[in-house]
Formats: sequence, structure tokens, C-alpha cells
Amino acid sequence: MQQRDFKERLSENAEKVNNVLRGILADRNLIGGELGEVFKYVLEAEGKRIRGALVLWGCEVVSGQVNRNAEIAAAAIEMVHTYSLIHDDLPAMDDDEIRRGKPACHIAFDEATAILAGDGLLTLAFEILSKEIDDAGVAIKLVGQLAGSAGPAGMVAGQLADLQSEKTKGSEEQLEYIHTNKTAKMFQCSVAMGAIAGGAKRGEYESLCEYGLKIGLGFQVADDILDVSGSSKQLGKTAGKDEKAGKITYPSLLGIEGSKERAVKLAEEAVEALGSFGEKAEVLRQLAKALLERTR
Amino acid sequence: MQQRDFKERLSENAEKVNNVLRGILADRNLIGGELGEVFKYVLEAEGKRIRGALVLWGCEVVSGQVNRNAEIAAAAIEMVHTYSLIHDDLPAMDDDEIRRGKPACHIAFDEATAILAGDGLLTLAFEILSKEIDDAGVAIKLVGQLAGSAGPAGMVAGQLADLQSEKTKGSEEQLEYIHTNKTAKMFQCSVAMGAIAGGAKRGEYESLCEYGLKIGLGFQVADDILDVSGSSKQLGKTAGKDEKAGKITYPSLLGIEGSKERAVKLAEEAVEALGSFGEKAEVLRQLAKALLERTR
Repeated sequence: MQQRDFKERLSENAEKVNNVLRGILADRNLIGGELGEVFKYVLEAEGKRIRGALVLWGCEVVSGQVNRNAEIAAAAIEMVHTYSLIHDDLPAMDDDEIRRGKPACHIAFDEATAILAGDGLLTLAFEILSKEIDDAGVAIKLVGQLAGSAGPAGMVAGQLADLQSEKTKGSEEQLEYIHTNKTAKMFQCSVAMGAIAGGAKRGEYESLCEYGLKIGLGFQVADDILDVSGSSKQLGKTAGKDEKAGKITYPSLLGIEGSKERAVKLAEEAVEALGSFGEKAEVLRQLAKALLERTR
Repeated sequence: MQQRDFKERLSENAEKVNNVLRGILADRNLIGGELGEVFKYVLEAEGKRIRGALVLWGCEVVSGQVNRNAEIAAAAIEMVHTYSLIHDDLPAMDDDEIRRGKPACHIAFDEATAILAGDGLLTLAFEILSKEIDDAGVAIKLVGQLAGSAGPAGMVAGQLADLQSEKTKGSEEQLEYIHTNKTAKMFQCSVAMGAIAGGAKRGEYESLCEYGLKIGLGFQVADDILDVSGSSKQLGKTAGKDEKAGKITYPSLLGIEGSKERAVKLAEEAVEALGSFGEKAEVLRQLAKALLERTR
């Protein structure tokens, strides 16, 4: 498969996820009052939907096709990702006014609305998993996977450690803890939810979890590199923020070259984890390559 | 049953809920980094645990006893209630520095920590429902009930409407919308989760839902009255805040006497909804009475 094909497949999946999100936004039983307008604003912003796409691919790799449960799980993880960005951008957090190339939620509306919109999206993610998936056993596994990865033993713990790192010098161990929890676990969660939706065997699930964690860490290293060397346009958010905030990053610890080497190694390890899947997992290998392109 | 017995039973249930919460806080698989300390601070504050107690009573009324699933559900709804208080107290929201008689979370720690602690508690509520309840069918119903009541078709929608009401004159219809969504649905959710945990029949579930909604609205009317006539100590938070913020409240729309009449009517309707349960539901009737005591 060529790189061109990969990009096409990513945007195909992004479109699928966007369609599911649009369907949910139109359901007035799920969203009351003026929240619909706010959700529309934040969910219709141009996101790459990598996490959602990973859910669909995870399902495809283990079952040969994308099913409805995977589509709902993809929408759920994009809601959780979007809530985390809304709260991350708040003045008391990263204080960023641009997100996905548009004014951040608290700028377009106000801070209180942004706090509540984030809370609402997070809750809605669990609501759609409980109400849109027929098989209770599959649904509750998806809830557990998402909550475990996004909650106080995952993303939220990573975000708190990240904010606290502004005050300290920081070690590589600490940085790894932050990025594993803040970013990598949500990538892992994506392929893991796809695996659950596709009825994966234990070993398949574990291989995809390993892949997701490595690709997620690699993605964060690439993001750190871009934050130093890229433009705000390329990032869709303000560049150079981490350094300014005195946060520990891969470039500040390993240098730009060292960080690029780390990204290459993580991409290789991610590809290795896919060993048992053969040709079926080609698109996931291509994602690892695309990640490296990003750091160049 | 005497009023004294009711208070004893409420504090017995509160203690049961607190024990479950302590067990969860001690589980390092569920909570990473320094979040444990923050959760401990907010969850060990003196709450009445009315919502948690209602879960246990809901289960008892339909099944004759409290089971483990109800205990987990009670802990989950207290986590969601606590997260909503943490976010509500933020400067961009209600801007309150006292909660449950102690400095609010963002005062004791900082704003970013309070935002993340709220996010983490909300997520943890769904995580424990998915991981601590054996029956997947029961667990996923509890997730759906909690998300539906707390999310963008429930509490979060009510909170947004509440904040927006500061800018408008406000009608009784609008006030009813706010309080139904912001407060009453979480009371309804409590008895509904208890009913689910206890294996309620459809009709029992619906009667308890009706009771929960009425008692929840009554509770909010009483809270509005106390905000005008009570002390901060009695409330455990700053008194007189609603009026100062120009929020519509029952006393501002109906006067104190009219509000008290409304509370009496809601308590009566709540008791009526319990008709089919007979003696078993006596403690829920006592709660309605206790609510009215509160307005005196």
C-alpha cells in the first residue's frame, strides 16, 4: 500500500467517524438546551480523528470489517479526546486560545460553558456506549477500557503530572510517565476498543494494546518536536508553548536528533507488535511511517 | 418509624457509602499519581450522602435488602455529585470558596487540579460501575442511567441553563427546567440506580423514578429557601449567593411562603408515588418529611 492510499484511508475513516458524531449531535434525547450548539462547534472543528480511525482499524484487523459497535466506540473516544482538549485549553490549564485552527471553546463561548461542555462530552461518551451498543458484555468492556485509559489511572493522572512538571527540572522517567498516561494510553485505548468491538482473541487484544502504546508515545515525541520546530498552522494550536511554560519535553531532554531517534525506535517497536497479523495490519504499519514523516 | 430513627438510618447509610468510597480510594490500580490525595480531600469532606443513601434505600424497597451492586452505584453517584460541586465552585462558575464546611478544592489545591480532579472523579464513577459489578446487564443499565441523568440531557444542561439565567429575568417554566435537570434528575437517578441494582419490575422502577424527581425538586426548593433565610454554617457553603448573582430562585419567583407551599406539595406528591410499596417504603416517606423540616 502506498502512502497516498494511507492518507485516503485515514480521511475515509475520519469521515465515517464524523458521520456518526453528526448523528449523535442530531439526537435531541441525548443533548438538551444550548449544549447542542457548543458540541457542534467543538466537534465540527477540523480534527484528524486518528483515535477514531484507530478504533475502526483495530476492529478491521481482528474481524476483517468495521462494525457498528466500533463506529460508536470511535465516536466515544473522539468525544473524550475533544473534552480533554477543551479543558486543557482553559486559562487555569494550558491557557491556549487556538484549537484545531479556530478560537478555543472558552474563547468562542466563555469559560463556564467550556467547563460544562467538556463535562457533558465526557459523560455523553459513556452514555452512547451504554445506549447504542446492543451486546451488554461488549458495551461494558468498552466502558471499562475507556474509563481506565481516560481516568485517574490514565489520561487525567498524566495531565496533572504534566502541569506539575512546570515547576520541576524533570527526569526522563517522569517524562515517560506523563506521556504514557496523558497521550499514549488514549492511542492504546483506541485500538483496544476496536479489538473489543471486533471480538478479538486475548493475544490479538494484547498485541494491539502494545502497538497502541508505542504509536501513542511516538506520536507525543513527534508532537514535542513539532512544538519546537513547527509552525502554529502545522500544529493547529500555538507552537512553542511547552518551552515557554518550562515543561519538560523530549527535545529538552534528548535534543532534536535524540528525539527523532526515539520516534524511529518507537515506530519500529509498534510495527514489531503487529507481527502476528501479517498483511491485514498493513494500514497500521503505514500509520507508524506517517508518524515518522511528521517529525521530518 | 420515628424521625430519630430516620436520621439514624441516614447516617448508617452514609457510613456504608463512605466505607465503599474509602475502599476505592485505597485501590492504586484505579488512581494514579497525586490524584489520590485530592480525591481523599474532597470525598472525606462531610457530605450528607443523601444520593448514596437513596440508592441503598431504592434497592432495599424493591428487593428487601442492600446488595453490593447498590453499594457500588451509591459510591458512583456520590463521585458524580462531588465532581459537580468541585466544578460548580470554580471561579468561572459559581465562584465559591467554601464547600462542605472546608475550603473548596480549587482553594485547597489550585484551579487546574480542581478541574482535573472533577474530570477524574466523573470518569472513575463509570470505571467502578464497569469493573466492580459482575452482571454486565446490570452494570450497563447503571452506566446508562447515570450518564443520562448527569450528562448533556440532565445535570450538565441544567447547570448551563442556571448560569445563563443570571442574565435574564426568568420564568417559572425556566426555573423548573433548571432545577429538574440540575438537581432533581440526580435524585431520580439515585433511587433508579437502587431499583436497577435490586432487580426492580418495570412498575416499581417507574414509581421510584417519580418519587425521586419530586423529592429532588422539593430538595432544591428547600435549598433555595435556606439560601435566603439560612446561615452559611447550616448550608455548608456561602449563603445568599443566588440572590447576589441575580439568579432566579423559588423565593424570588414565589416568595418564601409560596416556596414553602411548593415544597409541601412536592413532598406530598413524592409520598403518593410510593403508594404501591406499602410499609417497605416508610423510610422514603420519612425523607420527604425531613425535607420539609429543613424549610422551617
